[in-house]
Amino acid sequence: MASAAVSYARDNQQRFLSELKDLLRIPSISTLEEHKSDVRKAAEFVANELRRIGMENVEIVPTRGHPLVYADWLHAPGKPTVLMYAHYDVQPPDPLDEWVSPPFEPQERNSNLYARGAVDDKGQLWMEIKALEALMRAGNGKLPINVKVLIEGEEEVGGESIAEYVRREKAKLKADFALICDTELFAPDLPTLCVGLRGLVYTEIEAVGAKTDLHSGMYGGAAPNPFFALIEIISKLKDAKGRILIPGFYTRVKAPGAQELKAWKKLPFDEEHYRKSEVGSTMLTGEPGFSVLYRTWARPTLEVHGMPGGFTAPGAKTVIPAKASAKVSMRLVPNQDPDDILKRYKAYVKKLTPKGIQTNIKVWSKGPACVVGTNNKYIKAATEAMHDIFRKDTVFIRSGGSIPIVTDFQDVLKIPSVMMGFGLPDDNLHAPNEKFHIPNFYRGIESICLFFEKLGG
Amino acid sequence: MASAAVSYARDNQQRFLSELKDLLRIPSISTLEEHKSDVRKAAEFVANELRRIGMENVEIVPTRGHPLVYADWLHAPGKPTVLMYAHYDVQPPDPLDEWVSPPFEPQERNSNLYARGAVDDKGQLWMEIKALEALMRAGNGKLPINVKVLIEGEEEVGGESIAEYVRREKAKLKADFALICDTELFAPDLPTLCVGLRGLVYTEIEAVGAKTDLHSGMYGGAAPNPFFALIEIISKLKDAKGRILIPGFYTRVKAPGAQELKAWKKLPFDEEHYRKSEVGSTMLTGEPGFSVLYRTWARPTLEVHGMPGGFTAPGAKTVIPAKASAKVSMRLVPNQDPDDILKRYKAYVKKLTPKGIQTNIKVWSKGPACVVGTNNKYIKAATEAMHDIFRKDTVFIRSGGSIPIVTDFQDVLKIPSVMMGFGLPDDNLHAPNEKFHIPNFYRGIESICLFFEKLGG
Repeated sequence: MASAAVSYARDNQQRFLSELKDLLRIPSISTLEEHKSDVRKAAEFVANELRRIGMENVEIVPTRGHPLVYADWLHAPGKPTVLMYAHYDVQPPDPLDEWVSPPFEPQERNSNLYARGAVDDKGQLWMEIKALEALMRAGNGKLPINVKVLIEGEEEVGGESIAEYVRREKAKLKADFALICDTELFAPDLPTLCVGLRGLVYTEIEAVGAKTDLHSGMYGGAAPNPFFALIEIISKLKDAKGRILIPGFYTRVKAPGAQELKAWKKLPFDEEHYRKSEVGSTMLTGEPGFSVLYRTWARPTLEVHGMPGGFTAPGAKTVIPAKASAKVSMRLVPNQDPDDILKRYKAYVKKLTPKGIQTNIKVWSKGPACVVGTNNKYIKAATEAMHDIFRKDTVFIRSGGSIPIVTDFQDVLKIPSVMMGFGLPDDNLHAPNEKFHIPNFYRGIESICLFFEKLGG
Repeated sequence: MASAAVSYARDNQQRFLSELKDLLRIPSISTLEEHKSDVRKAAEFVANELRRIGMENVEIVPTRGHPLVYADWLHAPGKPTVLMYAHYDVQPPDPLDEWVSPPFEPQERNSNLYARGAVDDKGQLWMEIKALEALMRAGNGKLPINVKVLIEGEEEVGGESIAEYVRREKAKLKADFALICDTELFAPDLPTLCVGLRGLVYTEIEAVGAKTDLHSGMYGGAAPNPFFALIEIISKLKDAKGRILIPGFYTRVKAPGAQELKAWKKLPFDEEHYRKSEVGSTMLTGEPGFSVLYRTWARPTLEVHGMPGGFTAPGAKTVIPAKASAKVSMRLVPNQDPDDILKRYKAYVKKLTPKGIQTNIKVWSKGPACVVGTNNKYIKAATEAMHDIFRKDTVFIRSGGSIPIVTDFQDVLKIPSVMMGFGLPDDNLHAPNEKFHIPNFYRGIESICLFFEKLGG
């Protein structure tokens, strides 16, 4: 591991961290229209840095939504070409009052860096760029392999623009494999590669009853209440045991193989610790007969994220709202087709809609699940690189989350993805007090350096 | 009807209306803490006017919540004493974007005055005060009967302070009957007295699952979702036909008498017109076998008003919220005891709460239903006064809404209430574009003048 790049990275840790903080200060919340210019600012920040470290053909690619950032360096003939992916957009920070320090004012506490986007995904994006800087400096302006970089700003809102771009620019994006840094380690100090992701269909059921809000005293007993319609519908989408009741929902579900299931059983997982420290609930839920890892990695699920409408401030308002809606999403597993699921879901919701109420379904995002092959030299080099940095055997896991672009890389560009992520299970992704464990930020940079050096060597 | 007071009222209509607009400009929303000083301002506005027109012993009575306004004039020996009631607080104005003109900038359109509180209840409060002014001026500083005025600022939040005050100040508030102007006409131009109200229990079910918000990709399938708990609970509180499923809920319900039910059938009510013009839904809901008037006036109901928690902005956020809640209220009918109902409701919700979730019930307001007697000289004089102004026979109706103080006047002060209200069914109470039909504002003032003159003999 006498890597000059790793040495350079170690010598520059403080500066790397300080730069990351600057990126975290930009509230690039892709889902909120009022932050559109912040999202743009983050794209520019990333593009400028790629330019500064010596990447070529840096461009901010306009899209119908938020811009992509592209860059490349292609002067290693005969060596493999990597397509590096990450995203610079973040989730909304609410509920704001539960943050210990403000979401867009990064703060270090106990070797952790707290901020919205710290680990998802700005911190991991910055690992990629800083690894390139270290390799470039250690190589006197040369990288060990050919590199294409493609960073998006719509990961948290469905990633439509990058999907279109990949389809349109197949030749430009041609590579041997993709590196994706947007996942996590199974446990602290345990080198981990992610080889499977769930898909996602995120919808909003909008229900309309009366033409205007009505007084519940005057009209209670005669006017339809859209909240009851939503409650009636959603209560029939999933049973108390977590089994989804949409007809045909499970038909195409493909279970993990026996070997993979066996490997999962060997992972250091303490269900009681997970319940207490990560979830913090009195008990766990989900389908009986499946382990927690199975349920969260390889079983489809259905959740409600919010039910806008009516009166939600503290106190009492006796209103029967004219409209209400429910944000309902489904996580999909391999072989389930998002369009097929959406069709079945829409038909079922329509069937369940009580008389007197109109429902309409808006689709906010959709993408299929995917599993990547583990039998290629890129995964092997990544496995070795992580082993060298962590000094432990690398494990293969899946993630319950969704990174739709992995499927596109596989299906459209025909390349495998290496999902090398450095988050931790308690990093509070999408929640208040999101953090990145700072030593993992550094180990991430070093692992990428070694990974590319192995492939170039 | 050669009443000098009515003539005075007619001569001063424009000024009366302009004063009302000033009162409507004060956003005295009792349920929102940030409007506390506005509520106080409205109390002062009312007290100043009572003083200006010649009422005596005017005081702003401090309470643990919002202040009461008291005033009297007691120089008509041998004549009856009225206790006049109204409220100066209003409902929150949201959803704001559905108002044609801003809720606290009163605007006249088509003989209607649009503003939050126009009809509920500032407009009707102002009718009472302007009737007193007209009587006082016409009587050269004398009123035809003895008058006590008690105005509250917590009607929209349960009216706890006035209930305590009535219990404490029985002697001071001693009167022969109460006049309450907070109800409506059954139809435009149809003189109406309200003789029954439903009660109300307004609660918020708070549900907690995990200790923090969680990513639905990572934790979907293992973490309990409080929205599902609420949906599961609420789906079992009421069936699809509107029948409430809380055990023992209907045990004490007292049905209206045969004569009253017969009179309701004679009222000019067109169900199809009501559905289309008032409710504006594709169909009406509610218990089969009961008419619309029966369902909304004399059957208990249960509604959901809002479900705060999780992600409610436009777009997608894949969160399993740690907490969510549901605002659930029940309208009660005569003989149902709010405390008994609350006990049954709490026990049932507890029983329905799924494992892994804690629920807690907050009570925002509670009060019983009431019916008032129609066989007394006050109701008779009111009936005649309205007939004289409208030139039509006065009808007796009930209201599905709640005015808890009516029960207190009956039970604590042992006096009957005359509920003489001048709203219209389409006045958008508690909803955007609340209005008061301006001719009814004037007819209200004139009816009260005649009513008191008749009693003063």
